[in-house]
Amino acid sequence: MEVFVPFAADRPKSRLAPVFSLEERRAFARAMLADVLGAIEASGNEAHVLSTASIEVDARTSVDERPLSEAVNARLADRFDSPTERQPVTSDPVAVVMADLALATPASLDRLFETSADVALVPGRGGGTNAFCSHHPDFRVDYHGASYLDHREIVADIGASVDVVDSFRLSTDIDEPSDLVEVYCHGDGRARAYLDDAGVELETTDGRVTVSRSRQ
Amino acid sequence: MEVFVPFAADRPKSRLAPVFSLEERRAFARAMLADVLGAIEASGNEAHVLSTASIEVDARTSVDERPLSEAVNARLADRFDSPTERQPVTSDPVAVVMADLALATPASLDRLFETSADVALVPGRGGGTNAFCSHHPDFRVDYHGASYLDHREIVADIGASVDVVDSFRLSTDIDEPSDLVEVYCHGDGRARAYLDDAGVELETTDGRVTVSRSRQ
Repeated sequence: MEVFVPFAADRPKSRLAPVFSLEERRAFARAMLADVLGAIEASGNEAHVLSTASIEVDARTSVDERPLSEAVNARLADRFDSPTERQPVTSDPVAVVMADLALATPASLDRLFETSADVALVPGRGGGTNAFCSHHPDFRVDYHGASYLDHREIVADIGASVDVVDSFRLSTDIDEPSDLVEVYCHGDGRARAYLDDAGVELETTDGRVTVSRSRQ
Repeated sequence: MEVFVPFAADRPKSRLAPVFSLEERRAFARAMLADVLGAIEASGNEAHVLSTASIEVDARTSVDERPLSEAVNARLADRFDSPTERQPVTSDPVAVVMADLALATPASLDRLFETSADVALVPGRGGGTNAFCSHHPDFRVDYHGASYLDHREIVADIGASVDVVDSFRLSTDIDEPSDLVEVYCHGDGRARAYLDDAGVELETTDGRVTVSRSRQ
């Protein structure tokens, strides 16, 4: 299966600015991307990066400067729209997985890729959509706001069956300093190694676990 | 199986103070507890609330004023320690599930309860441990700090096999206002109904989804 991985090469992870400089955020975003691509390949599927700018990465890559929803919907249309007739629901699905799912593993992705529903959704924290897998020609995305609820509505509107994949690993997108605690506790790839190299450590204050840096 | 559900009756959910008054936090915590107990019962298991103070609830309840780790470890010792000899690893496990897992469902809990490992752990966000299921006589808990990492270490130290249950629903404990977004998007029980009654709604600001109240 072809698995698209949208990647914002130009403005990487601005909400991590309290912990990382711009250069560091760029490197950390690339480490997470490499982890996601590695997990997709290890699951036996073909990753295809949709990057907002040219990048060097060990996977098929297309540059697409359009906003996220537009870029993804263009790929869905390419795949499912025939010039002459509407395609039926197919056994050959398309998946989209976000580039900041640093905890993704082949096993967690398999639960998404092996869905028997027309559309499988992975919610992200805060109402987002971290990944989906669609067999249905009419499914399109709208990533603005609480996109998970919108995507549920879109699936219902087109009369498709839905599966919601219940995975902590896939629901954890890494946006904010507090999310780095998850990479520290549960990651074992390049993103986790990046935290070690940067001197990021856990810190417990008032019973809450956060991160701090022992060196800059 | 007996499933213990620790409940802090005296200081309910102080970090939700920006959204709910003390009385409301008390009621909301009780709604979450009822949802958790309902999911445990629907999974075919017996819930046993360990409350820090006397409460009226539709399940077996014991009052235990000790700190969380001490109260849970006392139950594990009761269950696994024989007065005369050490018990072997058993097919009759004990589980502990936190009372604020408002998204718990019978299906997600089954993944924990049906583990074949000696100890199954459910990580919570921020390094916590939201639930576990133990067949092993020597497993004990320490909920302080990044307890998930400590529990992994304890499991390794006693030579037990471990399973980590990868569930967004079970990893989502409801502590802070931003967590209410998860209840709004994914809940369908009493906690979700409580948000509706309280006029809690989603609000999208700068691309981030948060909650606001239309009435107090």
